[in-house]
Amino acid sequence: MSQRIAIIDLGSNTTRLVVYEYEPGRRFHLVEEVREVVRLREGMGNGMALRAAAIERAQQAMRMFASFCRSQGIDDVIMTATSAVRDARNGDSFLARVRAETGWEPRLLSGEDEGYYGALGALNGVGLREGFVIDLGGGSAQIVEVRGGLPGRTVSLPLGALRLSDLFLGYDRAKLAAVDSLSAFLAEQLAPLEWFRARPGDSLVALGGTVRNLARIDQAANNFPLDMVNGYELVAASIVDMAGRYWRMSQKERLRIAGLDVDRADIIQSGALAYAALLEHSGFERITISQQGLREGVFYQRFLAGQPQPVFDDLRQFSVLNLARNFDCDGVHSRHVTTLSLQLFDQLQPAHGLGASYRQLLWAAGMLHDIGIRVDFYYHHHHSAYIIQNSGLPGYSPRELAMIALLAQYHRKGNPKAGGLGTLFSDEDQRALPILAGMLRLSEFLERGRSQVVRAVRCHLDLANGWLQIETLEAGDARIELWDASRNLDVLQRALDLQVELVSGVWLGEQESLTQ
Amino acid sequence: MSQRIAIIDLGSNTTRLVVYEYEPGRRFHLVEEVREVVRLREGMGNGMALRAAAIERAQQAMRMFASFCRSQGIDDVIMTATSAVRDARNGDSFLARVRAETGWEPRLLSGEDEGYYGALGALNGVGLREGFVIDLGGGSAQIVEVRGGLPGRTVSLPLGALRLSDLFLGYDRAKLAAVDSLSAFLAEQLAPLEWFRARPGDSLVALGGTVRNLARIDQAANNFPLDMVNGYELVAASIVDMAGRYWRMSQKERLRIAGLDVDRADIIQSGALAYAALLEHSGFERITISQQGLREGVFYQRFLAGQPQPVFDDLRQFSVLNLARNFDCDGVHSRHVTTLSLQLFDQLQPAHGLGASYRQLLWAAGMLHDIGIRVDFYYHHHHSAYIIQNSGLPGYSPRELAMIALLAQYHRKGNPKAGGLGTLFSDEDQRALPILAGMLRLSEFLERGRSQVVRAVRCHLDLANGWLQIETLEAGDARIELWDASRNLDVLQRALDLQVELVSGVWLGEQESLTQ
Repeated sequence: MSQRIAIIDLGSNTTRLVVYEYEPGRRFHLVEEVREVVRLREGMGNGMALRAAAIERAQQAMRMFASFCRSQGIDDVIMTATSAVRDARNGDSFLARVRAETGWEPRLLSGEDEGYYGALGALNGVGLREGFVIDLGGGSAQIVEVRGGLPGRTVSLPLGALRLSDLFLGYDRAKLAAVDSLSAFLAEQLAPLEWFRARPGDSLVALGGTVRNLARIDQAANNFPLDMVNGYELVAASIVDMAGRYWRMSQKERLRIAGLDVDRADIIQSGALAYAALLEHSGFERITISQQGLREGVFYQRFLAGQPQPVFDDLRQFSVLNLARNFDCDGVHSRHVTTLSLQLFDQLQPAHGLGASYRQLLWAAGMLHDIGIRVDFYYHHHHSAYIIQNSGLPGYSPRELAMIALLAQYHRKGNPKAGGLGTLFSDEDQRALPILAGMLRLSEFLERGRSQVVRAVRCHLDLANGWLQIETLEAGDARIELWDASRNLDVLQRALDLQVELVSGVWLGEQESLTQ
Repeated sequence: MSQRIAIIDLGSNTTRLVVYEYEPGRRFHLVEEVREVVRLREGMGNGMALRAAAIERAQQAMRMFASFCRSQGIDDVIMTATSAVRDARNGDSFLARVRAETGWEPRLLSGEDEGYYGALGALNGVGLREGFVIDLGGGSAQIVEVRGGLPGRTVSLPLGALRLSDLFLGYDRAKLAAVDSLSAFLAEQLAPLEWFRARPGDSLVALGGTVRNLARIDQAANNFPLDMVNGYELVAASIVDMAGRYWRMSQKERLRIAGLDVDRADIIQSGALAYAALLEHSGFERITISQQGLREGVFYQRFLAGQPQPVFDDLRQFSVLNLARNFDCDGVHSRHVTTLSLQLFDQLQPAHGLGASYRQLLWAAGMLHDIGIRVDFYYHHHHSAYIIQNSGLPGYSPRELAMIALLAQYHRKGNPKAGGLGTLFSDEDQRALPILAGMLRLSEFLERGRSQVVRAVRCHLDLANGWLQIETLEAGDARIELWDASRNLDVLQRALDLQVELVSGVWLGEQESLTQ
């Protein structure tokens, strides 16, 4: 049964309401977002009280959100407040008023809580196992250590980009002395964090508007071919370069930076310097961006309430199944095409030599290859690719997403080529594309009648003589499958540089071994 | 309840199987197509018998199709055969064998039947009321008169493109004498058709691979920005130009024509000359292309069986509702946004002066504006536009489809602009885009809480002073709607060059008159 939940996140600068529609643990999608700038911290100074005008703006927004939830019939509402309310002496009385007006039970998050939920969002957004998550906002920055895929030790530091511009650099061109003061402050804040150091195998994930915008700028400078930041990797050299240049520029000059969010022209220089210091201290050489954060983390705690931990065991698998389910496209046919594709992949291992990560991408493409069919049948392979590319698929990098989309695009016709997405690909990826597409294509046509009549394939490979026989193990009349599959061998044949022939075999039941 | 039907069309050159999933009269979509080239007419000559090899190929394909239907559990199968079987002396015995092997009851279509079903496909594809439909295939061409939106008088002539190449021009560069003979033959065939003449208000619609390909070539030469031919208008001058040039070219030269389907390099010259003669005889100045034909016509007869005639009363309305239903997006919210948009359109008529055809496009955009939401929420306006553009929407021209897509694209943010689609637009269209987008945007935000709390709007217009007040008639707490709508007035304000203000009013029930 589908449920709906609203999550409200009242930050120092912005408040957002999001609504998810979901079946617990099974599928979800975001159906609504309302964002309002309330500048709750405005005029508050250091550790002082929320001001009357700011309170009024925030109350007003909360009343709107309450009205919105009522009118949509959503009674499951989680409201969280973070550093502005936490730091204010009158935060309690502000929340009491919100409670009285709306009937919600507002959650005032500690710095630890904030770090925890942000990390949950990031872990379920990019799939980190070992390393750290940084959530750098306007006021504070949280650093969370992640071990075994779960969030652990957390610290909250006063390193928000807005606050650093406020206290050190100002909003326009900065003086060198100011940059020196900021650098000293950053070093002093980070010095105690002996545990925040890269170990072998660790990764660093970051979230929040500042790092997303640094990534967008980096993408614009590199003609990045996709419109997504989740999973994007920003290298240290690029951040150090931005950190070294932006403080010297006036706001007007910064506004000309391609990819810059105009609302951040006054704080991006501080954010870049903060990230440069974080990288220098921790010794990481790159940052992976997470699009998801606090609100998503709060949602996952609910969505995954049935599990020991609110973190996906297998994020990539869940993302694919979630998208398929949202398009009513997780049926028997997709699963069987996937099964056949993976049988080919495994049995042809000696011929292609591709690693397990490619197998996983082939799995994803198999599950999603028909997802575009309701847009229009004739070009549904293109529509599947469009939907995959634009859906984001948490857990996959842009490069991987591009590969999955291309495999779906070429699952029924055309000569597989990376086109504009090729800039994301290694030589190995370029080689893998037609091989994987050839396997998916053949499997699609072996499942032409959508009846699973070809239960399995058995490959007889003779590499020395450049020859491959594929035996189709049939549990019935597979005429149409053999007919169509036999005219769709060319992609695989060319990609593997093998002579391929299909031979009709008989399915003898589940005891049949598929390994030779 | 969803049903499935398979339709098989055995032509002179190709046979196709299509499968539709549908709820009678309510919604359908194509879920499968299998195409095979069987060259059934090969070696048959004039009025002779189907040859053994051709029969074997066709039988083989029919066995495949039968196996396909069985394995998918489809027992509702309609098989039709056209001119090759009709003209053959042994057609009956061929069909008897198909019947025995498959259990189907094959329908041998007469020239009239063939014209009728092709016309049904075309009428339900582009929405013709008065005029003619031409279906020019490989062997024959059908001309059907359409009056009051229904197919009437029909003739079938031996003017198929393949046959004309065969009998007159050959497949490569032609001689002038051959063209003269062909022209004389065309004139002789058309001369008796006194009734096939353009009357005022008549349109000419054409279908089949030849005219679709002429359209694709015309689009390529004009940098047409969409990938669709349905509803495309091909002007006589362009056809005359192609007819005058292609027969002088070798096949190799023709293969360099941008947009040419390589399978047609040997017959396109004959098709172009046939169309030029058809236009000259009938006096039409343009042809509207229908993507749909015979198979679709057969399907519509089943789909619309509950109606007096198997033609949509309102094709454009049906197309929009069908797409919305296929994406589970025909809910109360979309309908209410549409209602509010149309109230604005009607009441602001003195301010914008746009005609009823724009009102219809606004209706369509209102119904479809959220259709992309399952791809991804944040850019769902873009995804809606993508789906609309690629779904085709029978009954709308490419220009209209572009307008609907753009309105959906700008329904929540951005400054409406036609971009690459602008080449399809008139000056009036360019003016209409931001006006309509402004109305849709305002309506979307007046329905922000998706609760229909703003039941209606009442416009108080003071053109002399450049001033407009919009009263929102509310049946409850419409705080969030007014809040969000008031910050989304800018597009409408700029487009109409009016000072716009929103005022909160009260809904007094259905007796409330919405006209001032």
